[in-house]
Amino acid sequence: MNNPLIIINPNSSETVTAGIDAAVDPLRGFGVPIKCLTLAAGPKGIESQMQADLTIAPMLELADAQTDAAGFVIACFGDPGLHALRDQTDKPVVGIQEASVMTALTLGQRFGVIAIMPGSIPRHLRSFGAMGVLDRLAGDRALGLGVADLASADKSLAAMIRTGNQLRDIDGANVLIMGCAGMAQYRAQIEGATGLPVVEPCQAAAAMALSHIALGQSHRKTKHAE
Amino acid sequence: MNNPLIIINPNSSETVTAGIDAAVDPLRGFGVPIKCLTLAAGPKGIESQMQADLTIAPMLELADAQTDAAGFVIACFGDPGLHALRDQTDKPVVGIQEASVMTALTLGQRFGVIAIMPGSIPRHLRSFGAMGVLDRLAGDRALGLGVADLASADKSLAAMIRTGNQLRDIDGANVLIMGCAGMAQYRAQIEGATGLPVVEPCQAAAAMALSHIALGQSHRKTKHAE
Amino acid sequence: MNNPLIIINPNSSETVTAGIDAAVDPLRGFGVPIKCLTLAAGPKGIESQMQADLTIAPMLELADAQTDAAGFVIACFGDPGLHALRDQTDKPVVGIQEASVMTALTLGQRFGVIAIMPGSIPRHLRSFGAMGVLDRLAGDRALGLGVADLASADKSLAAMIRTGNQLRDIDGANVLIMGCAGMAQYRAQIEGATGLPVVEPCQAAAAMALSHIALGQSHRKTKHAE
Amino acid sequence: MNNPLIIINPNSSETVTAGIDAAVDPLRGFGVPIKCLTLAAGPKGIESQMQADLTIAPMLELADAQTDAAGFVIACFGDPGLHALRDQTDKPVVGIQEASVMTALTLGQRFGVIAIMPGSIPRHLRSFGAMGVLDRLAGDRALGLGVADLASADKSLAAMIRTGNQLRDIDGANVLIMGCAGMAQYRAQIEGATGLPVVEPCQAAAAMALSHIALGQSHRKTKHAE
Amino acid sequence: MNNPLIIINPNSSETVTAGIDAAVDPLRGFGVPIKCLTLAAGPKGIESQMQADLTIAPMLELADAQTDAAGFVIACFGDPGLHALRDQTDKPVVGIQEASVMTALTLGQRFGVIAIMPGSIPRHLRSFGAMGVLDRLAGDRALGLGVADLASADKSLAAMIRTGNQLRDIDGANVLIMGCAGMAQYRAQIEGATGLPVVEPCQAAAAMALSHIALGQSHRKTKHAE
Amino acid sequence: MNNPLIIINPNSSETVTAGIDAAVDPLRGFGVPIKCLTLAAGPKGIESQMQADLTIAPMLELADAQTDAAGFVIACFGDPGLHALRDQTDKPVVGIQEASVMTALTLGQRFGVIAIMPGSIPRHLRSFGAMGVLDRLAGDRALGLGVADLASADKSLAAMIRTGNQLRDIDGANVLIMGCAGMAQYRAQIEGATGLPVVEPCQAAAAMALSHIALGQSHRKTKHAE
Repeated sequence: MNNPLIIINPNSSETVTAGIDAAVDPLRGFGVPIKCLTLAAGPKGIESQMQADLTIAPMLELADAQTDAAGFVIACFGDPGLHALRDQTDKPVVGIQEASVMTALTLGQRFGVIAIMPGSIPRHLRSFGAMGVLDRLAGDRALGLGVADLASADKSLAAMIRTGNQLRDIDGANVLIMGCAGMAQYRAQIEGATGLPVVEPCQAAAAMALSHIALGQSHRKTKHAE
Repeated sequence: MNNPLIIINPNSSETVTAGIDAAVDPLRGFGVPIKCLTLAAGPKGIESQMQADLTIAPMLELADAQTDAAGFVIACFGDPGLHALRDQTDKPVVGIQEASVMTALTLGQRFGVIAIMPGSIPRHLRSFGAMGVLDRLAGDRALGLGVADLASADKSLAAMIRTGNQLRDIDGANVLIMGCAGMAQYRAQIEGATGLPVVEPCQAAAAMALSHIALGQSHRKTKHAE
Repeated sequence: MNNPLIIINPNSSETVTAGIDAAVDPLRGFGVPIKCLTLAAGPKGIESQMQADLTIAPMLELADAQTDAAGFVIACFGDPGLHALRDQTDKPVVGIQEASVMTALTLGQRFGVIAIMPGSIPRHLRSFGAMGVLDRLAGDRALGLGVADLASADKSLAAMIRTGNQLRDIDGANVLIMGCAGMAQYRAQIEGATGLPVVEPCQAAAAMALSHIALGQSHRKTKHAE
Repeated sequence: MNNPLIIINPNSSETVTAGIDAAVDPLRGFGVPIKCLTLAAGPKGIESQMQADLTIAPMLELADAQTDAAGFVIACFGDPGLHALRDQTDKPVVGIQEASVMTALTLGQRFGVIAIMPGSIPRHLRSFGAMGVLDRLAGDRALGLGVADLASADKSLAAMIRTGNQLRDIDGANVLIMGCAGMAQYRAQIEGATGLPVVEPCQAAAAMALSHIALGQSHRKTKHAE
Repeated sequence: MNNPLIIINPNSSETVTAGIDAAVDPLRGFGVPIKCLTLAAGPKGIESQMQADLTIAPMLELADAQTDAAGFVIACFGDPGLHALRDQTDKPVVGIQEASVMTALTLGQRFGVIAIMPGSIPRHLRSFGAMGVLDRLAGDRALGLGVADLASADKSLAAMIRTGNQLRDIDGANVLIMGCAGMAQYRAQIEGATGLPVVEPCQAAAAMALSHIALGQSHRKTKHAE
Repeated sequence: MNNPLIIINPNSSETVTAGIDAAVDPLRGFGVPIKCLTLAAGPKGIESQMQADLTIAPMLELADAQTDAAGFVIACFGDPGLHALRDQTDKPVVGIQEASVMTALTLGQRFGVIAIMPGSIPRHLRSFGAMGVLDRLAGDRALGLGVADLASADKSLAAMIRTGNQLRDIDGANVLIMGCAGMAQYRAQIEGATGLPVVEPCQAAAAMALSHIALGQSHRKTKHAE
């Protein structure tokens, strides 16, 4: 049996991990098992750069323990530890933020990001700047929901659609990115309501990782050349 | 049986089509048949914007005739007719230039392009500008071979490696893109000799198209919303 | 008598061609005849990239038949076949989109574009990205008129003024570009109502082409050097 | 008789003014007289931002005295006082640096600048940044001549060709801009030797100013709207 | 006693100079005297590029007369003569616009500018383009007050807060810059009302100049190397 | 006595910390004590993103323990944990990379970076992209020394000068940044040999932090507004 793709959810929520696991189901026909792990040491949710950075050390350990991994996906929109894990392993490593942006750029001229919390937006902008894709960004808007409302699936979905419509109408987005993991179940409804393609980042990242694995593509080749 | 991914080689060279067909072999385990077509009406090779633009009309016809297509790849580095075909169909349409750049951006901070002919470079730069990725471009260099030398596999490979090393050492590339279709057989050797990851654009595009097909991802969703 | 500047309207509307012909009247004192041609094989109007791309082949033929041309203007905002025609001829070739942007950049710090249809905006953005001028773009807004209202001169003018005012007040435009050919008759009224300079793209392109002709300026000099 | 286009040479060299006057000869068929003035209060040559800035006050006075002017060109590569003069008058005002860049962008994908002195390059880069065109800049290189050698036409021409070839071969320029006024006599020879189109900035600026005059195009329309 | 930092207010308002003098009080513990001078030859206020440019000649003279200066700050948002003064002296020269932007970039991901007059915004954008920082600009908005209301401290403060809130809520600013000199007394109130860090440009510039003086940091080192 | 500015060296080398302590001596007249701490848990040197990221957790703890801190500087070129520490505290937090870039941008149009190891360059480029300053980057070059030669002060200085000269002559740098902490003792010699201003990042960061402290400037104001 083939070595699995390992998807690490760096927060400690098993519910989020289960959502990711379901999201990547359509990719299970690609011939490589997909295994989703929860970072027990992670916070319940990642809302700040500090929380994100503090997941890196245990995430690297968890990844290191997956000796049979064919590749890795880090499943937090913010890609904490993406380059650190690339320093640790030669196997393909994909971040869901990076992969979702690169995927969105093939689906529409300007992408809009549906952020959960307003405090995430400066972090996103730093990442998009590092990726060099700001000329393609239409806008990045937060749902504007309090914690209580976020717990409601109905209110969350309604807010995502409302935010998507604002990104389309005010900011000129042609494609949307869901700015968090674990909400893939809403993708089709947001597409239906906004009329725009929607990229779910865990799906995009898993697809890219599976492609890298199939093609023997990795960020580091020097050692292979030895 | 699943509907196939259609890869259209817009030049009329069956040899190039055969090369593409071999290049995407590692992706045949993704559960969707891959069918490579040659555009009989295309030129023997595409060296100018004029030649590229003139392939669009027959390419659109050829694509339109593939009624069972699950999606399309346009296999010319320059992506002629990419947006025209996206106007014609709701199915996923991927260009090898766009896909190779988006893939390269997940493999290294700055990408270098190995162009066959110097005259292609301004065309590439227009495309990279339209993609908004110039901040990530290390350089775009041509092989500097005459037609006679291009016919020699040995001289071509040597020139690709020499060009790749210049992109790495002078321009600071961390990942290379092969700037044409049909040369996938050299990928491993260039990776070995330069120590850099190398993206073969047909592989990158086919992988992305297969991912879009599996995930129901497309550039246009408005009609689906109806 | 001097060889003429040839302006090709790539849609088949004689009314549009007549409008272009009138628009360039103020430039008839520059000493070079200006001849406006309609592309009979073109669509009635160009609303998609597919339609634009399909004009290229017959446009190249029409241009090739103008053996006495001193230079060419392609009069569709989108510049279909601009670089293809530059591959075909050494004579000056100017696109109305490119020329209008370069002209606008000398008239105000940020330019706004009045688009006819919303679907054109992603095409415009790809072009502005290829031109490398996105830092100067204030905004690109469509009139928001249905086909019936577009047929009304009064409603069209009112919508252009309303859109121009939005570009000025919401997006911060200091200069406006009319994003289509054949509407030069409204230029003065839009300038009056918005208080901003307005660039009519056929005028800008014809002026630039006449300048190139007078100065012996062309995109290709290699052959001249032989 | 028509009102003249006024070209102001902001340095005090009559030789440079005479060179400008000869350079714009091919544009004398455009129906508007062209009058070239020397700024007596200017320095012999402009080599620093301080020298450039100090020409603004007397240049504004000289311009103000040209009551019959149809428009203005400021003929120093650096465009000193360009926006100040635009504050002073509603008539078209064109700077040779701005106009040469906008013209070059229609002739090749990346432009190279032949600077006279290395100290000018940071000034140029500030201007190109303000224009938002750095993505199109291939390079900006100085002649590397001492004052004595600059006095020699042969050595100057040879250095311009050598610099143009470096911009083409090392930096990837597709079009060249001569980074100073008064050297139009070398344009054809540089085009012949480098095989690239060459923009002489006074020619480009005068052509653009004449076009603005013919079309009633200006940077400020608010007053016209009154 | 140490040589002083000289801050030149290039308008002729002693009230503005007094405001600057008070603003830099917290920096008087840095061990270098700070002396604020009014440019008697300057206009009452600087509202256009023409007015700004015309201050350069007398400002250079005033600076030249300060033989004991340890360094200079030019205290007009627009930095008139910044590079000219750097040509004139090897001592540190800081402009309040440049310094406020560089300071703001360490305090928030995107900066918003509170401009006094709408006509200043194109000037600001040219400067930010020359600085290469447009990717970090959230927005630049004018107070929208007439001259009478600007004379009212209450109305000015209210307008600054209202503008700051718009920059935060509509444009996404994370840090604000006060786009003029002499209003430092409002800084704390704007910070309190908007919840954002606010950069007062004279404070930022004086701090940077004092740092340069202490560290022997200057824009020109060539002469020192002789 | 005033609360101190805390400078944290995130590697475990006391020699580097001592070098930093000496480097900031000229700023000890600013009225705030400066205290340099070594992160005992850090690696001997930081050469990868993984090593950098793993310093964040202990660095945050060390910072948290400095209850009397007036502000913080993180003294590793790469700014590990910069935004995490800004999440943890409202006090000013300055990274040496960010501060050195912002300082360099006031000293020359294009900055060059002297990197110690080639592997750092992609990390630098990601940071400069996130900062949005790539248009101002001339180049980033590594010393090209092995570990043995880096231990030699003479060889290190010679390599820094050689690299600085390449950044000046090949890449067009007008100002240099030393791409690591703890080498301030070479600054004057590099300035002397290259004729360019040189920014030592710990000096730049400490100066900026002291300025922020004096002016009550911080990245977060919301709490203050309560």
